Amino acid sequence: MIIVIKPEASKGAVQGFTALLEKQGVKVHLSEGASQVVLGLVGDTSRIQEKSLLAHHLVEKVIRVQEPYKRVNRLFHPDDTRIAIDGLDGKTRHIGAGYVGIIAGPCSVETREQIISVAQSVKQAGAGFLRGGVFKPRTSPYSFQGLGCEGLELLIEAKKATGLPIVTELMAIHQLEIFDTVDIIQVGARNMQNFTLLKELGGCRKPILLKRGYAATITELLMAAEYIMAGGNDRIILCERGIRTFESTTRNTLDLSAIPILKKQSHLPVFVDPSHATGLSWMVPAMAKAAIAAGADGLLLEVHPNPEEALCDGEQSITPARFAELMNVLRRYAAVEGRIWDEEDEGNNETP
Amino acid sequence: MIIVIKPEASKGAVQGFTALLEKQGVKVHLSEGASQVVLGLVGDTSRIQEKSLLAHHLVEKVIRVQEPYKRVNRLFHPDDTRIAIDGLDGKTRHIGAGYVGIIAGPCSVETREQIISVAQSVKQAGAGFLRGGVFKPRTSPYSFQGLGCEGLELLIEAKKATGLPIVTELMAIHQLEIFDTVDIIQVGARNMQNFTLLKELGGCRKPILLKRGYAATITELLMAAEYIMAGGNDRIILCERGIRTFESTTRNTLDLSAIPILKKQSHLPVFVDPSHATGLSWMVPAMAKAAIAAGADGLLLEVHPNPEEALCDGEQSITPARFAELMNVLRRYAAVEGRIWDEEDEGNNETP
Amino acid sequence: MIIVIKPEASKGAVQGFTALLEKQGVKVHLSEGASQVVLGLVGDTSRIQEKSLLAHHLVEKVIRVQEPYKRVNRLFHPDDTRIAIDGLDGKTRHIGAGYVGIIAGPCSVETREQIISVAQSVKQAGAGFLRGGVFKPRTSPYSFQGLGCEGLELLIEAKKATGLPIVTELMAIHQLEIFDTVDIIQVGARNMQNFTLLKELGGCRKPILLKRGYAATITELLMAAEYIMAGGNDRIILCERGIRTFESTTRNTLDLSAIPILKKQSHLPVFVDPSHATGLSWMVPAMAKAAIAAGADGLLLEVHPNPEEALCDGEQSITPARFAELMNVLRRYAAVEGRIWDEEDEGNNETP
Amino acid sequence: MIIVIKPEASKGAVQGFTALLEKQGVKVHLSEGASQVVLGLVGDTSRIQEKSLLAHHLVEKVIRVQEPYKRVNRLFHPDDTRIAIDGLDGKTRHIGAGYVGIIAGPCSVETREQIISVAQSVKQAGAGFLRGGVFKPRTSPYSFQGLGCEGLELLIEAKKATGLPIVTELMAIHQLEIFDTVDIIQVGARNMQNFTLLKELGGCRKPILLKRGYAATITELLMAAEYIMAGGNDRIILCERGIRTFESTTRNTLDLSAIPILKKQSHLPVFVDPSHATGLSWMVPAMAKAAIAAGADGLLLEVHPNPEEALCDGEQSITPARFAELMNVLRRYAAVEGRIWDEEDEGNNETP
Repeated sequence: MIIVIKPEASKGAVQGFTALLEKQGVKVHLSEGASQVVLGLVGDTSRIQEKSLLAHHLVEKVIRVQEPYKRVNRLFHPDDTRIAIDGLDGKTRHIGAGYVGIIAGPCSVETREQIISVAQSVKQAGAGFLRGGVFKPRTSPYSFQGLGCEGLELLIEAKKATGLPIVTELMAIHQLEIFDTVDIIQVGARNMQNFTLLKELGGCRKPILLKRGYAATITELLMAAEYIMAGGNDRIILCERGIRTFESTTRNTLDLSAIPILKKQSHLPVFVDPSHATGLSWMVPAMAKAAIAAGADGLLLEVHPNPEEALCDGEQSITPARFAELMNVLRRYAAVEGRIWDEEDEGNNETP
Repeated sequence: MIIVIKPEASKGAVQGFTALLEKQGVKVHLSEGASQVVLGLVGDTSRIQEKSLLAHHLVEKVIRVQEPYKRVNRLFHPDDTRIAIDGLDGKTRHIGAGYVGIIAGPCSVETREQIISVAQSVKQAGAGFLRGGVFKPRTSPYSFQGLGCEGLELLIEAKKATGLPIVTELMAIHQLEIFDTVDIIQVGARNMQNFTLLKELGGCRKPILLKRGYAATITELLMAAEYIMAGGNDRIILCERGIRTFESTTRNTLDLSAIPILKKQSHLPVFVDPSHATGLSWMVPAMAKAAIAAGADGLLLEVHPNPEEALCDGEQSITPARFAELMNVLRRYAAVEGRIWDEEDEGNNETP
Repeated sequence: MIIVIKPEASKGAVQGFTALLEKQGVKVHLSEGASQVVLGLVGDTSRIQEKSLLAHHLVEKVIRVQEPYKRVNRLFHPDDTRIAIDGLDGKTRHIGAGYVGIIAGPCSVETREQIISVAQSVKQAGAGFLRGGVFKPRTSPYSFQGLGCEGLELLIEAKKATGLPIVTELMAIHQLEIFDTVDIIQVGARNMQNFTLLKELGGCRKPILLKRGYAATITELLMAAEYIMAGGNDRIILCERGIRTFESTTRNTLDLSAIPILKKQSHLPVFVDPSHATGLSWMVPAMAKAAIAAGADGLLLEVHPNPEEALCDGEQSITPARFAELMNVLRRYAAVEGRIWDEEDEGNNETP
Repeated sequence: MIIVIKPEASKGAVQGFTALLEKQGVKVHLSEGASQVVLGLVGDTSRIQEKSLLAHHLVEKVIRVQEPYKRVNRLFHPDDTRIAIDGLDGKTRHIGAGYVGIIAGPCSVETREQIISVAQSVKQAGAGFLRGGVFKPRTSPYSFQGLGCEGLELLIEAKKATGLPIVTELMAIHQLEIFDTVDIIQVGARNMQNFTLLKELGGCRKPILLKRGYAATITELLMAAEYIMAGGNDRIILCERGIRTFESTTRNTLDLSAIPILKKQSHLPVFVDPSHATGLSWMVPAMAKAAIAAGADGLLLEVHPNPEEALCDGEQSITPARFAELMNVLRRYAAVEGRIWDEEDEGNNETP
């Protein structure tokens, strides 16, 4: 941690401040420049609050040298995290560490027929996981809010029918009790900094798909994951889904540069959701391919049998037929650098 | 609602689509341009989802003419909302409709001595409400998370000692049961789109101070308020506290233009929090004065007896002495256009 | 063009306004809603200024249905633009319409040895064009401003030595006279809305590489290209190079979703500059691959023999060895969907 | 300047690097932390490029402690800059150092009658300067581009008729020759980083009104001013006019927090342009008052006798009558803290 002292500070005042800092168990190196004094703090600075330092009348700037996250930091955990999830079909799917995983399904579960038919289509096309919203965060109180518990029942039926592990969004802590048969719990972008919820999920043992808030920095996403890991749950999938910028042609700006950065800074797998990011189904294939090429560990894709009649987000869903086509192209992109396509694993349990 | 049809659409297809729309109870006006057909939907379009229309293969763009919010909309409720709150000192404070209200206090409640001393100072300087955080949303799981229930007890003691109504942040639904003696419930920026929480607050009868998310549009802030009003609670104070932009000199960019817009679009009172927006105490006076001049109905100001030793956000807190000075200047700014300073109301219960 | 009338407008006032509009040669369709009147303007609305309408006291909103650009619009020019550029080596390079083009070279031309050695390396690795800055736009007046005319001489020597067409940035109109031997003129991000310069370039007959301003919308980029085309020059290459957002880990946020949108809205070729966007050389390969997968027509890549000693932007340059490796991988990504790699064209002049 | 070394660097490598740095004339202090080494550079670091250091394989981060600007820096020039401008009416107007200045007039000069009538109105209402665009930067090549030289003639006539000094925008270097009778040269937001133009203006002796680019940081605005001052011209007025954010209700987000920051970091006067920032005339008064309350040294206000018929930006112009009303209110806001209203100076040439 580096502290830049205000130019007007007296020598004595700086000495007093240094003594104060050293009482907190750190060593202080002082560099005296032509017009400014800089202190370098060495040792365990994790308990020293940048903001508290900034309130001190001698301090002009505080710069943290080390990242504020530890458990999610690749520095202390060099190997990629791999998450294994068992399907009811007897097959184990892997996420991270070279595997490419595809989570597909409708924005909202609508009817038994709809969700089972989508589940079968996406499984056949090679998806490893089924997604479907049942509790929906909606900007307007007058919009369709999801089928709730009834929708969850239908999603579980689709899981039984296909064997695919299921992924759905949790919106409040009390819903946790009914998420027992859910395989991956999604935390939506709007809840990425719902710290009470994150702490609770730290105590559960299910994989968490943590979506980046649309105005969250990469560091904040990693800090949100740190909340979950600090609670003891290390099965976290990070998910980039677009950030809010001045550009309004797309719903959000998909930040694909976040992929290499997240993978450098952290050992956690990184997924991308091109459907929500762009909000426009015709753009989904281009951005899905780009995400794989940039090194994403997997994708979240919205698939709906009849997007024109979807109760929610139809404009960003692709049909099962287009999904199958896209999967064929994505396999070829993943093959360019020898990525492991999840389904190849079938009947072959050796690790890569 | 306006629907722009894709240029390649056939006449027959457009007729079929028009018929489909009219079945949903709206009248459709068709304008045929040189290269494009545009449909104007007239009637109650509130049940028609823009996004569902966008999924239709004939549709190029959908433009909503009316704002998506109703209860918070000034169009349907032309008079300013005024909220009256009784203090234990027998005085009623008013918020909105010409009154200027000041909510002041420390970022976090730390000790009995601290909170009671601040409460007395800010009351004496003319603040109408005491704020103090007890459950703190913190980016890092390793930061001070607030004193919790114990802090709430101390805040209530300060309320009893001074008579000031108190304001504190609610982070989760289950905390509602212990918020009985809280006078104004604050919803923090990170929870502005925690829709489960908003619905719950719609069912309670306490005033809600709803902070704008740092990446929320003005429309989204109003939609969040609409969630609360749709539940039956119409005592809502909107609060601008800075948005996230590319500029990094200040923590956030305080969007003061939101004030005239919110006051034009809605009848709800609008407060501003210059302490969190700028994150730098020396900037607080300038932005507080600007907020009043721009028409804000009140301010949230962080005051700490010893900012250098604050457990949280000391760098943005001003001392009681500077607060008292600032209040004197603010009164003069408020007087320029004859705003009602809350304290003048004492012993005079006539409405303005 | 759609005009939403203010709710308080009288019937007579609207009739008068309609008459006024029809005098300007358009037909007006009136839709009367429950609470609002909407006018649809049909015909040639290109002379009617949105902003002038907005100033009218009856008008609440104005919505343009058609895009404001014409010559760069794919609607009026469905086929991809292809630009052919002859090298001194007797080979013609193509840009756009299925070809993948690579422009590579150092940020700044520094010495004869440096530029000739880079030119030879990138040619050998398969680049089709040599870039090198001679007039440099620098944020600080105290930074290295480029070698100027002397640098241009060296760049021309490298062109002669390798046969590669050269690309360099023009910063002011008066430099045009010495750009005679330059093959592609680059307009930098900071000059994207230097309209005087754009008009001048509309009058020249050289291909223009037009970089998107870091705060320019996609529509503004296309309008800047429209300025050049309106002047008669239709050989324009659009270039995405990152936009400014709240995320500060990367220098800018590379907006790869701009690629499919630009290619849908316009017939012009679209390049991507991952070096400037990320500002970090280790991220360049990931983003270069993603750009190709997203459908970019080519890339601008900074290559420097010794990035640690570069006079400018060394941190974003890759070495010739890494460039050659990257090219091998990029070829495989381009091959996935059968893109035409520029060099394959050698000795084979059939068009695709 | 602080250099954070990569964790994997060997002791020997760091020593070599330190020796290299010291050869460039700085002293290096080394702080060895638990997991990282940090170098503090002391002395004249102005020739050491951050970006070049970043390219070095040992370097992880570089942090500049001192601001990169010198001449515009208040640190080296503690007193406010005051600019005196003589009018043809024999009166000297002052800008900065406690004075409040008002520049008013139409977006574009349209006719002799229009500009002279506006000039007389704004002078009568108390404006100190007349503005009017003659060369207009327009997003579309098909929009009205200003009257050019003819417009300049009309503006000069208005100057003669009223005695008001005039302000107009320069778009290209070659226009400088005809700007002889212009009193303040405006550099528009889109040209803020047109470095060739800035260098040229450094060589002239007229006051420059430098508008902040809509995506420029505060530091970049100061660096642009540094370009002009480095050339020898120290009569610069900085102007905040809104930045580009995700919020689309207003054209731009007026960043009033820039005012206290600019005034802390620099000695130059700071103006605000609420007309362009909001793009909506009804918002202009609120934001003009807020700007004065936040400490702005003056305002740029668009005034048009008939905004509904303006050829340019009518929607953001106020009428002379509303301008006169606004001026009366602004005087009262300026008086709250004893600011010197320019006109009070009449017949009283003592400096404050």
